[in-house]
Amino acid sequence: MSGPDSSDDLGFAFIDSQRQERTGCPEVVYCMGKTVDQAEAIMTRMREKGIPVLGTRAQPELADRIVKRYPEAGYDTVARTLSIGELYRAEERRGLVAVAAAGTSDLPAASEAARCAEFFGSRVKLICDIGVAGIHRLFSRLPELREARVIIAVAGMEGALAGVIAGLVAAPVIALPTSVGYGASFGGLSALLGMLTSCAPGVSVVNIDNGFGAGYQASLINRLGHLNRTPPER
Amino acid sequence: MSGPDSSDDLGFAFIDSQRQERTGCPEVVYCMGKTVDQAEAIMTRMREKGIPVLGTRAQPELADRIVKRYPEAGYDTVARTLSIGELYRAEERRGLVAVAAAGTSDLPAASEAARCAEFFGSRVKLICDIGVAGIHRLFSRLPELREARVIIAVAGMEGALAGVIAGLVAAPVIALPTSVGYGASFGGLSALLGMLTSCAPGVSVVNIDNGFGAGYQASLINRLGHLNRTPPER
Amino acid sequence: MSGPDSSDDLGFAFIDSQRQERTGCPEVVYCMGKTVDQAEAIMTRMREKGIPVLGTRAQPELADRIVKRYPEAGYDTVARTLSIGELYRAEERRGLVAVAAAGTSDLPAASEAARCAEFFGSRVKLICDIGVAGIHRLFSRLPELREARVIIAVAGMEGALAGVIAGLVAAPVIALPTSVGYGASFGGLSALLGMLTSCAPGVSVVNIDNGFGAGYQASLINRLGHLNRTPPER
Amino acid sequence: MSGPDSSDDLGFAFIDSQRQERTGCPEVVYCMGKTVDQAEAIMTRMREKGIPVLGTRAQPELADRIVKRYPEAGYDTVARTLSIGELYRAEERRGLVAVAAAGTSDLPAASEAARCAEFFGSRVKLICDIGVAGIHRLFSRLPELREARVIIAVAGMEGALAGVIAGLVAAPVIALPTSVGYGASFGGLSALLGMLTSCAPGVSVVNIDNGFGAGYQASLINRLGHLNRTPPER
Amino acid sequence: MSGPDSSDDLGFAFIDSQRQERTGCPEVVYCMGKTVDQAEAIMTRMREKGIPVLGTRAQPELADRIVKRYPEAGYDTVARTLSIGELYRAEERRGLVAVAAAGTSDLPAASEAARCAEFFGSRVKLICDIGVAGIHRLFSRLPELREARVIIAVAGMEGALAGVIAGLVAAPVIALPTSVGYGASFGGLSALLGMLTSCAPGVSVVNIDNGFGAGYQASLINRLGHLNRTPPER
Amino acid sequence: MSGPDSSDDLGFAFIDSQRQERTGCPEVVYCMGKTVDQAEAIMTRMREKGIPVLGTRAQPELADRIVKRYPEAGYDTVARTLSIGELYRAEERRGLVAVAAAGTSDLPAASEAARCAEFFGSRVKLICDIGVAGIHRLFSRLPELREARVIIAVAGMEGALAGVIAGLVAAPVIALPTSVGYGASFGGLSALLGMLTSCAPGVSVVNIDNGFGAGYQASLINRLGHLNRTPPER
Amino acid sequence: MSGPDSSDDLGFAFIDSQRQERTGCPEVVYCMGKTVDQAEAIMTRMREKGIPVLGTRAQPELADRIVKRYPEAGYDTVARTLSIGELYRAEERRGLVAVAAAGTSDLPAASEAARCAEFFGSRVKLICDIGVAGIHRLFSRLPELREARVIIAVAGMEGALAGVIAGLVAAPVIALPTSVGYGASFGGLSALLGMLTSCAPGVSVVNIDNGFGAGYQASLINRLGHLNRTPPER
Amino acid sequence: MSGPDSSDDLGFAFIDSQRQERTGCPEVVYCMGKTVDQAEAIMTRMREKGIPVLGTRAQPELADRIVKRYPEAGYDTVARTLSIGELYRAEERRGLVAVAAAGTSDLPAASEAARCAEFFGSRVKLICDIGVAGIHRLFSRLPELREARVIIAVAGMEGALAGVIAGLVAAPVIALPTSVGYGASFGGLSALLGMLTSCAPGVSVVNIDNGFGAGYQASLINRLGHLNRTPPER
Repeated sequence: MSGPDSSDDLGFAFIDSQRQERTGCPEVVYCMGKTVDQAEAIMTRMREKGIPVLGTRAQPELADRIVKRYPEAGYDTVARTLSIGELYRAEERRGLVAVAAAGTSDLPAASEAARCAEFFGSRVKLICDIGVAGIHRLFSRLPELREARVIIAVAGMEGALAGVIAGLVAAPVIALPTSVGYGASFGGLSALLGMLTSCAPGVSVVNIDNGFGAGYQASLINRLGHLNRTPPER
Repeated sequence: MSGPDSSDDLGFAFIDSQRQERTGCPEVVYCMGKTVDQAEAIMTRMREKGIPVLGTRAQPELADRIVKRYPEAGYDTVARTLSIGELYRAEERRGLVAVAAAGTSDLPAASEAARCAEFFGSRVKLICDIGVAGIHRLFSRLPELREARVIIAVAGMEGALAGVIAGLVAAPVIALPTSVGYGASFGGLSALLGMLTSCAPGVSVVNIDNGFGAGYQASLINRLGHLNRTPPER
Repeated sequence: MSGPDSSDDLGFAFIDSQRQERTGCPEVVYCMGKTVDQAEAIMTRMREKGIPVLGTRAQPELADRIVKRYPEAGYDTVARTLSIGELYRAEERRGLVAVAAAGTSDLPAASEAARCAEFFGSRVKLICDIGVAGIHRLFSRLPELREARVIIAVAGMEGALAGVIAGLVAAPVIALPTSVGYGASFGGLSALLGMLTSCAPGVSVVNIDNGFGAGYQASLINRLGHLNRTPPER
Repeated sequence: MSGPDSSDDLGFAFIDSQRQERTGCPEVVYCMGKTVDQAEAIMTRMREKGIPVLGTRAQPELADRIVKRYPEAGYDTVARTLSIGELYRAEERRGLVAVAAAGTSDLPAASEAARCAEFFGSRVKLICDIGVAGIHRLFSRLPELREARVIIAVAGMEGALAGVIAGLVAAPVIALPTSVGYGASFGGLSALLGMLTSCAPGVSVVNIDNGFGAGYQASLINRLGHLNRTPPER
Repeated sequence: MSGPDSSDDLGFAFIDSQRQERTGCPEVVYCMGKTVDQAEAIMTRMREKGIPVLGTRAQPELADRIVKRYPEAGYDTVARTLSIGELYRAEERRGLVAVAAAGTSDLPAASEAARCAEFFGSRVKLICDIGVAGIHRLFSRLPELREARVIIAVAGMEGALAGVIAGLVAAPVIALPTSVGYGASFGGLSALLGMLTSCAPGVSVVNIDNGFGAGYQASLINRLGHLNRTPPER
Repeated sequence: MSGPDSSDDLGFAFIDSQRQERTGCPEVVYCMGKTVDQAEAIMTRMREKGIPVLGTRAQPELADRIVKRYPEAGYDTVARTLSIGELYRAEERRGLVAVAAAGTSDLPAASEAARCAEFFGSRVKLICDIGVAGIHRLFSRLPELREARVIIAVAGMEGALAGVIAGLVAAPVIALPTSVGYGASFGGLSALLGMLTSCAPGVSVVNIDNGFGAGYQASLINRLGHLNRTPPER
Repeated sequence: MSGPDSSDDLGFAFIDSQRQERTGCPEVVYCMGKTVDQAEAIMTRMREKGIPVLGTRAQPELADRIVKRYPEAGYDTVARTLSIGELYRAEERRGLVAVAAAGTSDLPAASEAARCAEFFGSRVKLICDIGVAGIHRLFSRLPELREARVIIAVAGMEGALAGVIAGLVAAPVIALPTSVGYGASFGGLSALLGMLTSCAPGVSVVNIDNGFGAGYQASLINRLGHLNRTPPER
Repeated sequence: MSGPDSSDDLGFAFIDSQRQERTGCPEVVYCMGKTVDQAEAIMTRMREKGIPVLGTRAQPELADRIVKRYPEAGYDTVARTLSIGELYRAEERRGLVAVAAAGTSDLPAASEAARCAEFFGSRVKLICDIGVAGIHRLFSRLPELREARVIIAVAGMEGALAGVIAGLVAAPVIALPTSVGYGASFGGLSALLGMLTSCAPGVSVVNIDNGFGAGYQASLINRLGHLNRTPPER
């Protein structure tokens, strides 16, 4: 494993340019908590080093700057993802990841998961508003869910969707609790606990609202089904 | 409203003999936290006053003493209920309460709910092990659930059963979270939070493992469907 | 049970148009967490399908748009409910639901409960500021409370109102904890825990500030007292 | 203020023999967490120094030893208090402290409060099983409560008793939450939070099951009503 | 006890005009959570009934309106108290309540406590910034603290002040935890827990930031030392 | 999907015999919370139906009975797993799952994970005591970890092992928090939170001590790498 | 120890001018929760008494005022520290404190720690973005870390950095958890718990985001390595 | 840094024999959660490798076995420490660590801290029962505390001791919260939070009841004051 490169050190940040070598995936920039200047500098430096860049929780002001500088950049206002370049071209993506969201309010987290799974090489289908309160809606989409190699189940409130799906399919389910809800939802805690204690096996859980983590993990799993697991050389 | 009767005062306990007059139901003896002597004295005094007696969380030693003294007494070792006399005879019970338990381990709480609903005048059907991990089991019992006037949904872990049932039936659902589970179940907390934040309306929740409270509330609701809501004179 | 209709699928939302068939009540639109555009589209589509529409936690901007489009729409600024059409006409409502609020600050939750109970076919009486700190105020309203088929007890802080009422009446009590209070109220947690552990039976609890859930559950229970439990055909 | 005395230092414990000089009350020995040998040594040393000794949470084995050694010692098996000598003789006690317990299971905490209030010079009346589920029982004892200078309200579960009493009397209420209850009682947390957020003013709260703290504080307050606030010389 | 008066019922609020008869103190208006219109209407109605009015957590806008209408009204911008008239004139106040605040940031809660204790008839001394980090500051004020009949100890963060004072004085200590602090202070929780578990007896605790509750309780206790405990007739 | 079979219904339990059809894996018997009689009856009935049986958290008494009845049964006293028959023969297992345990005390959970992953068709390597306090131990085992298709990282206390491994390998990591630790470990909560908030992506988490869930999920993921994902016909 | 000086008492604050005599360090002004007027008055009075002044969490408006009045004052907008004068000149600082921050978002807390350690006489090196997700970055800075007498490890999310460093160096580690993160980070709670339960010894922890506390403690420890531990006379 | 030695690997455990090389201190065996056989094997292997062995939380049965095998072994039944050999002879220990315990019940944690500090080369003085409820006891021991290079403050309940000491001395304070207390102590949580939020700087905190961690950290700090920081060759 080669040592860090001096061009990786920005003082306030240290780019992990060996990440792809170690894990098969480049580093992703988590923009929240960084100033716009810091996030811009990091994304720019990564781009200069030839790394396809994905930023999550990107502020609109940052997106404006990056899109102005890199015409190929793309910003998704619902998912709040900002990318410069792609790790996989659309036609290079393999294996279906289904993102199943319980309700309309779960769309930001679900979209982040979908976009990240895509960035890391999966084909993605986003299925919205199939929460367990009207379980026939879930059953009507079951054939689509059963086609997926991995399923991301996105839900706030009691988070029951993950366990119900896991009892119906053979694919592993990544549960993504959201902070949707109020009162005893306690900012996503009830969904998180519900998903962790799901009586159906085949569920593992990521942090509340962590669409990035869910999409990334789904793609790591998904690519186990390919002969060649590493992204194409660019 | 008449004042308390001096025979109600045992020093360490004060029998609420006007409870039936106020609420249509006699007081129930919660045995946990009382010594066997105290619980025995309370049940005996109530019996002497002609009140049909129901004790919950009754210790086996207490049951031994009471059954020895009152041959008509009945003890249910799973539900841990102990009764002397009945408020309603079997043939006087009206309206079906379904008790739906997610798993075998939920039986103690479910049985307590069933026995209490029965004591307070409901016909009861107990349906066991229909948790959402194998949702076809729930669907196979749906016709029975739809016959009920009130449904008690009993579940530990993520507690999803209550919301799923509420989305499928027209009856009100009383959710009874149990302490079944481990780790992030936190003694029933995850089930409780899940049931409180259920995305399906038509659910209200009682305390963790509170089978008595669920059965009692179900019977209060159930008797709204009768012409004559008060228990028969004995 | 018929399958979902393609007109139900808005992409970001999936209208549960079979809900009334399954549960006797149409779906309600929870507006918080949805954009104004999304909420408007859902309510409009439901209206087009002939479903009487009730939205909760509706933003003023949404109300403006809906009221402009549907002159028959009504917005309650305290309850934050927005409706287009009614499920029951005033004269078709049956059975009294009493909404008892502990304090003036509980009015938003209490009003939401009242409006929802009404929408789902109950007659409603709202009684305000009868918290247990001055218990004579509660006693002065006891005759009115005793006329109700179901009582919704609304309180923040220690939430004692629910248990005290349940000890005085024969009707089931739906406890609605509110986030009123500060410090150790922890956003309604103390009221919630107090109501769950009420020493009086006959209480079941909904989520903090969930006026909709309380009103809906009260109406489900209330209609058990009618011969014909389903809403009139429109 | 005089310095500590070398006879106060037992190595594993340091008797606060100046406590009475500073606060008007001698130190009390909290026995839980101490070995029987340690507790015995501390109580014996205090006795040798002429200090009337009160031990709380005293194990039966310790009581056996102490009673054997000091015939004047007294052990209360419900309150788990163990005393050698009295700070005040019965006829020297002044001012009534009422200890109002919600239920029979609250008796251990209530008895500890009662015994401690007595030890520190108050006359005490213990009123049991007047919880708010049957509020007429509380009203029937109101005249007795109104005679008290200070009231200790003892309750587990939702802890509503303290606030209801405080709304009815002019005396300050010391709220003593107990760990009685299960599930969402969380070991007394719900009672504690309920008492802290009581909507009635005139309530202050001690730790869960801290009968000693409640009784001590009640006596501190009670003696404000006397001309001479310090214990008689022995 | 006389029944409620119809003039007490404002629809959204129910004035407890018998409170003074029952508890010796008139009702206080908690303004937070009420609209300015509601709070103004309540205070005005109370004033019309001749009740001296104290409002807590009063918004500046409310204060403007009330002061404009009642020239005798007074608003304290630190304590956020708003009063119209006084229950006791300055020269009628009896018995010293000391309010000891750990730090400058505790002043809002401490001032509320001080103002409320004064309103309910106590003489008050506010001593600021004597937290335990520099314990000599506390010792330098000990003579003043020892003159008080009741001490209110106000502190955020670890809340140690209450226990340290209680170990040094003979007066009862009312502990008032504040939300001052950050991180593991958890909005006052650490101070609250610290005060509840104080190893010194003679401490009882009110809700976080509840200056009103502390001041009120201190005055209830303080007046036990007077011959005539009720406020002067006006 | 075929309907449930009447032979599945034992009254107290409802065998999900279609689980393999739906999810590719048969049901597993969670023995905790069931009586020995109940667990024995369920395992026996499953065996009679020809389903390879795996029980988790099996009590020694149950193991005794089952091993006596079925000589082919196997009980692992560390993992507390009890099996009758195997779903895959040793030589049929494909793809390596590495189970990396932080410390010796994590062995029960780690062994349960290992045994379950094996039962569901994975080859397994268990690597013990490579916690981050001596990170060279982890590095010395890195080549073995990099051979695995899926890694289960097992740790109590701060749970850092999962994130450190995920930053070093290309395989997905299933984090299994354990209740090992004391004090601020809060029964596994600190490990759970640490794993959920891991700054390295590629981690998803199961419930505290849920070795079964981790092993099952790892095998679901692992078999994505096979051409034929379903177990061999027996 | 001399008594407090009347010039220390500002009414709303009580300057602890003997702090340096007792602890070897002057008092520091925590500005949050104080009004700008209060903080300015305290800093000015301290300055007048010749005490080098350090303010933490200083608002920009306060900084403006102080810098205008005292040209030698310095404000660090990232660390939010504001100082007038220095306790040690740069060349008087002894012993290296390394501040190791896991990520860019941890810079505010890390900078506060660095500035405070410097103020109290340490030489400081700040190393940024070496979190455990890319552990080679940490290893590349290990030589620098090993030169330090004390290390401050700053991290949010799972807080693993502290334990990993402590396992690699001989210096004591002060762990500084930050509120960086979301969801199950619960405002820094997960980092705090992770650091407290670190399996590597040699770690002790300060409050969430308490850069001041970490820097101060590091300097107290660091100066144990000097012959003369007290600051130079000015 | 040399690689791990094959003799370090016991299968169920991996001895970190390079720990002294990296950190200056050998590994310590935490016995809780290990079987007696496992702990014995680990301690024996370490002893065979010539490492002085310290075990914490050692069960009496383990102590019996080890003492039988190694006559030089020593077991402290209060501290529950078990050692074979010493890292430093008594006369080689340098620099005073004071262990200040608030109460008698804190002795187990305090003794563990004292024994561990000693093992790692410090001279130790244990001062017991100087909690803040009788603060003169603390003042009477202040001269001894001021002689120490590092102070370990041990307390349960509100944990105020740490902050009070830190305000009085120039040495760094390691705060060791204990699980002593009940009710709102929540197993040491209140002490932990109190110590973390201490208003006095110069305090850092270890896990609840973690006497080992406190003693180890104190010795790391203490040896900064020596010329030669590493243990003597044996």
